[in-house]
Amino acid sequence: MARREWPLEELTAGVRAGDRRALARAISLVENGDPLAYPLVRELYSETGRAAIVGVTGPPGVGKSSLVGALVAHLRALGRTIGVVSVDPSSPFSKGALLGDRIRLADHFNDPGVYIRSMSSRGHLGGVAESTLQAVLLLDASGKDIVFVETVGAGQSDVEVTGIADTVLLVLMPGSGDSIQALKAGIMEIPDVIAINKMDHPAAKTMLNEVRSIVRLAEPDRRPPIVLTDAVRGENVAELWEKLEEHRVALESDGRLEERRRRNLAGEVFAIASSRARSHLDAAVRGDPELARLLDAVERRELDPLSAVREIMEKVFEVDGREKAREV
Amino acid sequence: MARREWPLEELTAGVRAGDRRALARAISLVENGDPLAYPLVRELYSETGRAAIVGVTGPPGVGKSSLVGALVAHLRALGRTIGVVSVDPSSPFSKGALLGDRIRLADHFNDPGVYIRSMSSRGHLGGVAESTLQAVLLLDASGKDIVFVETVGAGQSDVEVTGIADTVLLVLMPGSGDSIQALKAGIMEIPDVIAINKMDHPAAKTMLNEVRSIVRLAEPDRRPPIVLTDAVRGENVAELWEKLEEHRVALESDGRLEERRRRNLAGEVFAIASSRARSHLDAAVRGDPELARLLDAVERRELDPLSAVREIMEKVFEVDGREKAREV
Repeated sequence: MARREWPLEELTAGVRAGDRRALARAISLVENGDPLAYPLVRELYSETGRAAIVGVTGPPGVGKSSLVGALVAHLRALGRTIGVVSVDPSSPFSKGALLGDRIRLADHFNDPGVYIRSMSSRGHLGGVAESTLQAVLLLDASGKDIVFVETVGAGQSDVEVTGIADTVLLVLMPGSGDSIQALKAGIMEIPDVIAINKMDHPAAKTMLNEVRSIVRLAEPDRRPPIVLTDAVRGENVAELWEKLEEHRVALESDGRLEERRRRNLAGEVFAIASSRARSHLDAAVRGDPELARLLDAVERRELDPLSAVREIMEKVFEVDGREKAREV
Repeated sequence: MARREWPLEELTAGVRAGDRRALARAISLVENGDPLAYPLVRELYSETGRAAIVGVTGPPGVGKSSLVGALVAHLRALGRTIGVVSVDPSSPFSKGALLGDRIRLADHFNDPGVYIRSMSSRGHLGGVAESTLQAVLLLDASGKDIVFVETVGAGQSDVEVTGIADTVLLVLMPGSGDSIQALKAGIMEIPDVIAINKMDHPAAKTMLNEVRSIVRLAEPDRRPPIVLTDAVRGENVAELWEKLEEHRVALESDGRLEERRRRNLAGEVFAIASSRARSHLDAAVRGDPELARLLDAVERRELDPLSAVREIMEKVFEVDGREKAREV
């Protein structure tokens, strides 16, 4: 596809109309931190909030991408339009290796009702949280009914990313012992829906029982449904979608969806601002020999780390770097 | 133990002398973000850098604490003094439940050559990264030969904490399928030494082979040794310590230790400064009705998130919040 320049107005109209080349260009701008991305999303923001945002998380190798692929196939058959944003560096989406017809996801690449995109985590000011949020907003504005956000993680560093979702799906498989332990220890947050993929594995039943026993520890109204799936064969994919939709409908019916979105958006703004503060810090120290000298003094054990932090904060942010722990 | 007030000078001298009540008080100050903690660590900082810092990471439930307990017993028998800082909320150290004589760690609580402390992650300005670093520096200044830092995590959000360590030990057990996948996918960093604990488990051999096949993908000089252990029975604990020590000796002999410590300290300073920037942001938005109104506008889809970020950055940090992606 020949690269062409898009005037902002045309790009905005293209995204709004769901044109895939416009979407591709727009998300690239976002991903590269291009100055044009900013007015583009600003322009379209008032038209967002209509898509159902489903976060799909879980350790690598459990089949998240295949399951998303199977859900896409199911939803297309129902006539729904779909966006997929993958921020999992280990995802087959990211690797361009789409498992061919095994998950039949390649088919969707020519389907105008589906747009699939993996985000690189290459650094720009607001980091991956920022580009993911912007990409999701663009897909939302393009009129997609459902947007999946696929992330890796044991439920920790991906907080900011699943913080976009209306509904969080955790995918596990037989052998996901570490995630089970993390759930049990309360280190990983209980998601809204759990899928145990590769249901034909001999240890699937054991895993189901373990997950059940953990889920029972949660408050009765916070206990997520658990679905045994097989993404490759498409088994129980319809049931999984039913549970995901039920969760959202329940949220919507009692006003919790609005509340969750308020919290999510505030969280996103904070995450992006912190990420930018960090980038700013990084650039300032790298560009300022005086600040670089502070780090040298720390390394020579002449200046303690907190004194260095204090001086850096004062210099970079004009913020009083002293402890004010009582205030926060 | 009756609470008593320590004048700064006496506290400094107490920590320096390795007095456990002084250490306990000093680490509490650090943990609470008390203003006194700051001059205390500043005073002692020039006396740090002598202890060997060993980061112990791995998913919950694999027996990290038991293994640290077994290493402590082994090292005490060799006459070495030891500090342990646990930042794993699921650790038995944190729960005060020390598994009694099962790991015989309770014994060490009366041993003046050992100081064990779990850090709460309750928030103060610089977060857990800051209090952990400060606690490690205090233990180092108190003359401990070895300081263990125990953290949970699939190798992601604990980056800042293992960033203190000279040597990183990853503990796995049979069933740690998710960690294996994360290592394989390159999402979890290859550590310096790997222990597979609960070696008598029937699946231990399979796990060992899986870990071996992953480790072989690393550069020959970056392949960590793998030790099968049983913490409860103390099996192969001496061998594990040997590997940990060998790693450090190798680092020291070719100047990489110094380089690693330089990188670690710079990383810590950044982590703490970013954490403070985030706390500052949080406090500013909560305390400023104008900034809170920005978030409301985002939630009503009237103002897009990045415009809000820009205004917040300008107001809070007096930093130009516009994209300057090319620079960083």
